Amino acid sequence: MQQEKKHITIKNFTCEGGGNLPFVDIAYETYGKLNSAKTNAILVCHALSGSAHASSALKEDRGWFGPMIGEGKALDTDRYFVICSNTIGSCFGTTGPSSIDSRTGVQYAMKFPTITITDMVNVQRQLLLNLGIDTVVTVIGGSMGGMQAIKWAVLYPDKCKSAVIMASSAYSSPRSIAFNKIGRDIVMNDSKWADGNYYGTGGPVEGLALARMLGHITYLSHESMNKKFGRAICQGSDILNLTEGKFEVERYLFHNGFKFTRDFDPNSYLYLTRALDLFDIKRNYSSLEDAIGRITARILLISFSTDELYKPIETKEIYDLLKKQGKDAFYHDIDTESGHDSFLIDYDRYQGIVKNFLKNVSHG
Amino acid sequence: MQQEKKHITIKNFTCEGGGNLPFVDIAYETYGKLNSAKTNAILVCHALSGSAHASSALKEDRGWFGPMIGEGKALDTDRYFVICSNTIGSCFGTTGPSSIDSRTGVQYAMKFPTITITDMVNVQRQLLLNLGIDTVVTVIGGSMGGMQAIKWAVLYPDKCKSAVIMASSAYSSPRSIAFNKIGRDIVMNDSKWADGNYYGTGGPVEGLALARMLGHITYLSHESMNKKFGRAICQGSDILNLTEGKFEVERYLFHNGFKFTRDFDPNSYLYLTRALDLFDIKRNYSSLEDAIGRITARILLISFSTDELYKPIETKEIYDLLKKQGKDAFYHDIDTESGHDSFLIDYDRYQGIVKNFLKNVSHG
Repeated sequence: MQQEKKHITIKNFTCEGGGNLPFVDIAYETYGKLNSAKTNAILVCHALSGSAHASSALKEDRGWFGPMIGEGKALDTDRYFVICSNTIGSCFGTTGPSSIDSRTGVQYAMKFPTITITDMVNVQRQLLLNLGIDTVVTVIGGSMGGMQAIKWAVLYPDKCKSAVIMASSAYSSPRSIAFNKIGRDIVMNDSKWADGNYYGTGGPVEGLALARMLGHITYLSHESMNKKFGRAICQGSDILNLTEGKFEVERYLFHNGFKFTRDFDPNSYLYLTRALDLFDIKRNYSSLEDAIGRITARILLISFSTDELYKPIETKEIYDLLKKQGKDAFYHDIDTESGHDSFLIDYDRYQGIVKNFLKNVSHG
Repeated sequence: MQQEKKHITIKNFTCEGGGNLPFVDIAYETYGKLNSAKTNAILVCHALSGSAHASSALKEDRGWFGPMIGEGKALDTDRYFVICSNTIGSCFGTTGPSSIDSRTGVQYAMKFPTITITDMVNVQRQLLLNLGIDTVVTVIGGSMGGMQAIKWAVLYPDKCKSAVIMASSAYSSPRSIAFNKIGRDIVMNDSKWADGNYYGTGGPVEGLALARMLGHITYLSHESMNKKFGRAICQGSDILNLTEGKFEVERYLFHNGFKFTRDFDPNSYLYLTRALDLFDIKRNYSSLEDAIGRITARILLISFSTDELYKPIETKEIYDLLKKQGKDAFYHDIDTESGHDSFLIDYDRYQGIVKNFLKNVSHG
């Protein structure tokens, strides 16, 4: 498949919370070819730790949504022009707290404006306009990506023909807000966070690793953890020694927590988790029904039975509201042990559903 | 009801992990009167943050199990002599890491031996022997207290006529181990923890508060948090300001986390959560079936439908194993929104069940 990595810069972007950015760099990748009428685009939205690198022709570099994108895949690059951009506030090429503020010559750090899912969507809209794309075939994403997808359908009802919302909800629950709060506080309680001004120093590596470990638990499920780790003890570890003994699950979390800190900016973690907390599709509308009522796109909702972060009932709530208003909506709960992370694991379980769904969305 | 606060000291206690303590002070309280045959005792076991103060005749000082203990209550002080002792490793009068090591004249801190649920049970057994009590009518507890109750039934089958195990499991799941690991790491990543030698200084207050906040989330449920907080924003709080805005759930957790630090020793938190992780009823037996097979006491198991820490399926696993072996066992799943904390909230929902269960346990 044809594949490109690019970036553009947009100017003078005003955030939902009122903050202003003189420039926003947007890193994005595309897969497949845009048709001459520019009507075959699909927008893929990534989750908290994701980037624009959704796919690749190289197997060893497949990208976070790789198994879904390519010739003959659900997001078929023989038919569609697939676009994925790094969200505003992140740290993989798009402007975020680790970017240099042109007005001061130093990193924004905590002077970066508070951002929301709406801001992510508005930056994506600017990118599409820049590419001459008025309307997309679908907007698809899981978790934070699913929030962007539904926000697209509410904010720009005539600019997306459909939306695929996975492992997501119409608003963040107090439980997910609470986990994110602890994660942020762990980072900010690390003395190396230094009020966010750690650039050029080691930074709050331990804090971010711990926050990620906590997040990681919420992405798994009781069942998947039982199967993956059980109560296995690390080889050679004296488990009855408090400071030396380690269960396998502890080793795994430690490994993955610190791996995350190699690439991820701690301040981006603060901003993006807050964007998750602030997500509430009814903000700026009179009610949840009113917000959902704006949707004209065909909607596909997918939840995962053991998702403990965005529970199936939360996804189903969106479906019920859509059907109540006579909207064109479909809902599937995938029976899986993989928990929230299922949308990044069980591609084969939902690829066919997405493929069938898109068959009936016109694009041209 | 007659009520006493006492303590005794036992000597030369060897822990399951091999550590030795020259003295263990045991703080305990009793409610009701021991009969002359000493056959009417009930042992109440507390959870992670609990103490010997299970009840009180004074309403304003009711204790953590107060509504269950007293004249006419399930643990009827007109019939029973109810005993509750602070567990080894805790910080409310029984020897733990904040106690002075008589051999060095300073606090044990991290030199305290690793402790297990078995050690808690063995200390309780010493206390009972000291009071001249050979056999108890029942051992009852929730969460960590439930682990002690089932451990009693396995370790001393002829010393307890029955056991009531609530919101508990036969072994800690990798998910609960993972949450405890993060909690401990948060404490130990607080620079004020100082390798555990913080006594006489401020200590890792922020770290312990954060660890407690995390624990607190796991004690609640998706449903109870939705009902209690929803997405309510703190009054006067600009929620679109990352550093200033606060949701109610964040304020609540912050308040409760720091409240916990007023009384609780951070090192005790490390030792007790590790005792939870290490809990596995089959350790030292050939299998789970073998361990359960030792039980001769009548068993009552109670789970709570929305418990996300020790899920009903975990409690039910014990019941299924007991019934498979033809044991005298009863199981109730209480339909509630209160999550794990239900055993400290919904007394009225299970008081009758415990009362009925105890009616059929003879007591001399």
